[in-house]
Amino acid sequence: MAKPRLKMIPIGGLGEIGKNMMVLEYGGDIIVIDSGLMFPEEEMLGIDLVIPDISYLLERQEKVRGIIITHAHEDHVGALPYVLPQLNVPIYCTKLAKGLISIKLKGRKALALAKLNVIAPGEQFSLGKFRIEFFSVCHSIPDTVGLIIHTPVGVIVHSGDFKLDYTPVDGKPTDLSRLAQAGRQGVLLLLSDSTYAELPGYTPSERVVGEALDRIMAKAPGRVIVTTFASLVSRVQQVIDAAARHQRRVFTVGRSMSDTVRIALELGYLKAPDGVLARLDELRGLPHNKIVFVTTGSQGEPTSALVRIANRDHRQVSIVRGDTVVISATPIPGNESLVNRTVDSLFKQGAQVYYGRVAEVHVHGHGSQEELKLLLNLVKPKFFVPIHGEYRHLSHHSQLAQSVGIPEENIFVLEDGDILELSPQSGRVAGKVASGNVYVDGLSVGDVGGVVLRNRRMLSRDGIVVAIIAVNKQTGKLVGRPDIVSRGFVDTNEAKDMLDKSRDLVAQVLDHGSKHTAEWGFVTTKVKDQLNKFYYEQTKRRPMILPVVIKV
Amino acid sequence: MAKPRLKMIPIGGLGEIGKNMMVLEYGGDIIVIDSGLMFPEEEMLGIDLVIPDISYLLERQEKVRGIIITHAHEDHVGALPYVLPQLNVPIYCTKLAKGLISIKLKGRKALALAKLNVIAPGEQFSLGKFRIEFFSVCHSIPDTVGLIIHTPVGVIVHSGDFKLDYTPVDGKPTDLSRLAQAGRQGVLLLLSDSTYAELPGYTPSERVVGEALDRIMAKAPGRVIVTTFASLVSRVQQVIDAAARHQRRVFTVGRSMSDTVRIALELGYLKAPDGVLARLDELRGLPHNKIVFVTTGSQGEPTSALVRIANRDHRQVSIVRGDTVVISATPIPGNESLVNRTVDSLFKQGAQVYYGRVAEVHVHGHGSQEELKLLLNLVKPKFFVPIHGEYRHLSHHSQLAQSVGIPEENIFVLEDGDILELSPQSGRVAGKVASGNVYVDGLSVGDVGGVVLRNRRMLSRDGIVVAIIAVNKQTGKLVGRPDIVSRGFVDTNEAKDMLDKSRDLVAQVLDHGSKHTAEWGFVTTKVKDQLNKFYYEQTKRRPMILPVVIKV
Repeated sequence: MAKPRLKMIPIGGLGEIGKNMMVLEYGGDIIVIDSGLMFPEEEMLGIDLVIPDISYLLERQEKVRGIIITHAHEDHVGALPYVLPQLNVPIYCTKLAKGLISIKLKGRKALALAKLNVIAPGEQFSLGKFRIEFFSVCHSIPDTVGLIIHTPVGVIVHSGDFKLDYTPVDGKPTDLSRLAQAGRQGVLLLLSDSTYAELPGYTPSERVVGEALDRIMAKAPGRVIVTTFASLVSRVQQVIDAAARHQRRVFTVGRSMSDTVRIALELGYLKAPDGVLARLDELRGLPHNKIVFVTTGSQGEPTSALVRIANRDHRQVSIVRGDTVVISATPIPGNESLVNRTVDSLFKQGAQVYYGRVAEVHVHGHGSQEELKLLLNLVKPKFFVPIHGEYRHLSHHSQLAQSVGIPEENIFVLEDGDILELSPQSGRVAGKVASGNVYVDGLSVGDVGGVVLRNRRMLSRDGIVVAIIAVNKQTGKLVGRPDIVSRGFVDTNEAKDMLDKSRDLVAQVLDHGSKHTAEWGFVTTKVKDQLNKFYYEQTKRRPMILPVVIKV
Repeated sequence: MAKPRLKMIPIGGLGEIGKNMMVLEYGGDIIVIDSGLMFPEEEMLGIDLVIPDISYLLERQEKVRGIIITHAHEDHVGALPYVLPQLNVPIYCTKLAKGLISIKLKGRKALALAKLNVIAPGEQFSLGKFRIEFFSVCHSIPDTVGLIIHTPVGVIVHSGDFKLDYTPVDGKPTDLSRLAQAGRQGVLLLLSDSTYAELPGYTPSERVVGEALDRIMAKAPGRVIVTTFASLVSRVQQVIDAAARHQRRVFTVGRSMSDTVRIALELGYLKAPDGVLARLDELRGLPHNKIVFVTTGSQGEPTSALVRIANRDHRQVSIVRGDTVVISATPIPGNESLVNRTVDSLFKQGAQVYYGRVAEVHVHGHGSQEELKLLLNLVKPKFFVPIHGEYRHLSHHSQLAQSVGIPEENIFVLEDGDILELSPQSGRVAGKVASGNVYVDGLSVGDVGGVVLRNRRMLSRDGIVVAIIAVNKQTGKLVGRPDIVSRGFVDTNEAKDMLDKSRDLVAQVLDHGSKHTAEWGFVTTKVKDQLNKFYYEQTKRRPMILPVVIKV
């Protein structure tokens, strides 16, 4: 009998292949790498979160041996509160990831379910036919790992999210030596982070930001407010270090920032000299040039601490002339206008604002082209799959791989749900599973689909007109005058005459209508068409039109 | 009697001060500089365009002497079709601007109204007490000018949109010599472009793009599709030049690109060697490496030629393997995701794609910090107003001006509608006029205000629920069961039970209601509250709730 082939399937991630979830299957065993979420794109109106569609896993639940987590960023762990209750399997992760996942699961009351196993870099463990080893990589959160996975068809190396920082803040560079060893022993497949495959050169070290923070704190006449992602623990460490050097005390503002700082301190991933960290109630009386705030809000999120501060809507902090604000992050595409508006508002209130365009206050957490090529050269895989990127990033990464000598036919640029089948000699895309993304909107997971979103889009553009038509249920005749109610369509005062005319139009259509109940469907369609035409002529707008017939 | 002061008022521009329109008033004379439009921001749902509110001008119509146009980009001329019919005054502009404005006005059937006067750089003309001189500046469209305006209180220099390109494609650099002369004679006020006041150094010359296009066309194995703004005439010139060097023919695709190329050729602002430009019907039989397309769509606009091509939805052009696409523009904030999606789709179809992140295929049309400082140094104004930028750009420009020696108290960072009053000795912000932005939605200008937009936002998030309640007009009693119709709220099949329960809930509320018609307002509010609460408990969503009472 032929040996089974290895299957690999990326799931979810809104087109960023393998970012939220990657499935590996061999015979009777499945392992899952990461379980993250995405934030909705612009046209996903009203959607809160987007998570991977795990129906493939649910149909093979008895095979699933565990979920392996590379690091505790939202796009790699955020779906756990939704996935775990359905797919109750053990989780394998590093110590800091366990701490942060625990907070997340506790918040969603799903912690009791979780079997969280801590694995240290260098350690190995087995799940069915898979033997997995963690290796350290540098990223914008400490304790990030890549994976060396021994499978019956060969060794797979998964880079995780990585960069090559030779002077990382936590002192743990990417383990190039272990990767070189794996490369010498033979690697069947490399999966590598493509996030910055577009960028030439090397990503600068995280230290660069420390130096910028140092310069800014040295010359700031008053308070310094640094905003970044809560999960950028190394960034927070550099804020603490710079503050300590300038005799400033550090106050964390906002729940997610305070939670992360607390857990990172507890677990030893964040270190603060005595007396540097302070509670907000110690603020009073402290000279302004002795104060540093660390907050969330680097993406201009409307409910974040920084945006509340910028809008003079924060309970404890408001901007005064002489404040300095540092936005230590890059806006995610789609968030630029929110961030710009926040910066404008801070300037208007008299703050000096430093952000990516005007100062080196942020570096990426992902490797650029030269780093990606170095990894390819060390690992020397037979097959290559670029992951963690949209199609253009994967295409660039594929071109980089070809430039270092990997034949084009050994590179697989996958799309969501593609099944890559691998034997020791060959690979091919063999079909597609139901995958894609599931929308979370409020309490419900997955009920908001195409129709609901299409309706929201239509409503968002030109609003709605409800035409209420009461008819006598015996005679089928109109009772009274049809009513028109609109929202989001026109200024109802200014357009009073037009709306009034449209009531008469409905009455006319009904005059020509039939008395047979069976034909009401036809009549409402006609009402819709006539109103649509009339409103378009009058306004060049196309509101949603909702005729409602009441039989009395 | 005291002499009147000069008043200057920026109007519109969605916070980009003075970009769409600047008003200058002295005694009985008003002149207007530019009359542009903005594209709506993300939260302006369903809005097509945003134009300046000209009510200040309409109230003083007899004083308005004319509109002076610095260049024919949408953000400086796009509002003319709306403004001219209300404010019928002559327009003063350069030759190319006249050509492009004519196309625009013709399209909107407003050309008959327009009195378009061509003024050459170096020429002077008078409007009331103002004497105006055009001087050449470099920008991303030829025939762009800045203004030297002689007023009774002193000389004003208005930079227009500018950069200092010493090797511009059209051979006409910014007229530094005239500016230096003005500076030596004494300038009261400088208004200068702040668009790139954040960027250190110098903006590269437009020639850089020509070199990149040359390299790309040399190595492209098949067709080359270059996409840019139709108005970037110098960019189109460079495409034609590069194509000619590589024995390729150039096809324009899309109406606005073809219109602009035609008018620019007619007026001599675009030059093409014989046989380079071709019509689409000459495409057949031409080898792919002899073809260049120039299209619009650089912002990922859904109806543009490039996006149709990327979506395989274009009548004449579709991507084949071996095609090269050059996106010769930077995404405007807010358009990144649209552009990214277009790039991904082009890569998927086998094209090689070059864009700003991966190749030097675009340069800015505005000066960077060193250029702005040079202008300040040459003009040596007493007062300075940074224009054409959002607040953070203006703040940076103000800091640059201070760094070259202009005292902070002589710099005015204005907001929309601020009245700056100037005498030869002093300036101050003296009040604010009704200004701001007017929304164009379909046929109507200005009727879509806060309420309509708030409703659209609410509808876009969680949809709408209409509760239809028929009551007997004599007894006030409920007739039949209340009806519930929803759109964009939930999947109506999956949520059938919940929606059904909410019908009973409405009936219950009404049972406790009163029979007195006067109290129906109270009852509908109660229905609204109860449904709101019920739906939020069930779904954590807040649809708009619209109770409709029908009396029968």
